[in-house]
Amino acid sequence: MLSDMSLKEFLEKLSSNEPAPGGGSAAALAGSIAASLGCMVANLTIGKKKYEEVEEEMKNLKVKFEEYRDKFLQLMEEDAEAFNEVIEALKLPKSTEEEKKARNEKIQEKTKKATLVPLQIAKDALEVMELSGVTIEKGYKMAKSDAAISLVMAKAAVEGGLYNVKINLPSIKDEDFLRDINSQIEKIEGEANTLELRLLSKANI
Amino acid sequence: MLSDMSLKEFLEKLSSNEPAPGGGSAAALAGSIAASLGCMVANLTIGKKKYEEVEEEMKNLKVKFEEYRDKFLQLMEEDAEAFNEVIEALKLPKSTEEEKKARNEKIQEKTKKATLVPLQIAKDALEVMELSGVTIEKGYKMAKSDAAISLVMAKAAVEGGLYNVKINLPSIKDEDFLRDINSQIEKIEGEANTLELRLLSKANI
Repeated sequence: MLSDMSLKEFLEKLSSNEPAPGGGSAAALAGSIAASLGCMVANLTIGKKKYEEVEEEMKNLKVKFEEYRDKFLQLMEEDAEAFNEVIEALKLPKSTEEEKKARNEKIQEKTKKATLVPLQIAKDALEVMELSGVTIEKGYKMAKSDAAISLVMAKAAVEGGLYNVKINLPSIKDEDFLRDINSQIEKIEGEANTLELRLLSKANI
Repeated sequence: MLSDMSLKEFLEKLSSNEPAPGGGSAAALAGSIAASLGCMVANLTIGKKKYEEVEEEMKNLKVKFEEYRDKFLQLMEEDAEAFNEVIEALKLPKSTEEEKKARNEKIQEKTKKATLVPLQIAKDALEVMELSGVTIEKGYKMAKSDAAISLVMAKAAVEGGLYNVKINLPSIKDEDFLRDINSQIEKIEGEANTLELRLLSKANI
């Protein structure tokens, strides 16, 4: 498992000429960092007399951030696997017409999967942006820069996920799939940009 | 050392109610991820016949990216240490006038240090943005999304570093120091925004 590697080992593996783990896994890791920082801000808010009013909300946030932190680590593995499965499909035999057809179908199937994993990363990171926004507005003031950095990391995870979605689209032939994904990309991008502007102006750092 | 911890352990520690490691270390880690991804793209470009013309340039880039990857891991540790030193200074005795004066001086000294470390993170991340830009323009085309994600992560490291700089400024009394830092912040922000727009439009993903 990538998440059992030390930071140093993981970053050395990421630097190597193996294409996986690559950008998608990096985006997922950014999402996990964002969720962890948000969780820290919730933790620093919980138990403080001045923040009694938001105590319950922060306890709920803490649980959600932990879930996203762990889900992103899972998505980090899945993105690397999905990429390797595309590479395996590309290596299938293509001597006969039948083999060519089977290979093309497998490539299409695996490329779709390699598109859906980073799309999920972007979607989850968008939700983490929302949650980070709550910690910016209501969390412990002394940790406001941490809350803002959580938001910035989540935004990077959205953008990174979407780059990995977009890079796969030219290889996909299913027009309905492409229409659906393109409309999802547009929606996520719009929401992420709006959220970032609104929340960072509230952070007012 | 934080970088010897597994990803899972590090993220759990980041999530906890210990304020360090916090946002500054997270920004440094984003910088290290950015440099690692850039390094991967350089590695994937080196040795490819079609990219012979940029072979030397990619070999140089690879070395620079590795240096930044390791430097950011160092800065990740330093940011956590600098924060803890501020906390230590705050705990100094303040019963007598003499103690108060010594404590205030120590707080000022340590807060300046806790400002200069994330400023260094932002500066280095800005340089990694430039290097990522070269991989976007000249690197292996199949890894273009990885190069773009490297840029996005480096930009997040710039922004994250600067939030951690800005949060400290209201506690610092040295006007010359503040003027200098504020002018550096403005310069780095301007350059990072310009670079991001220019380079991502070149990525054209």
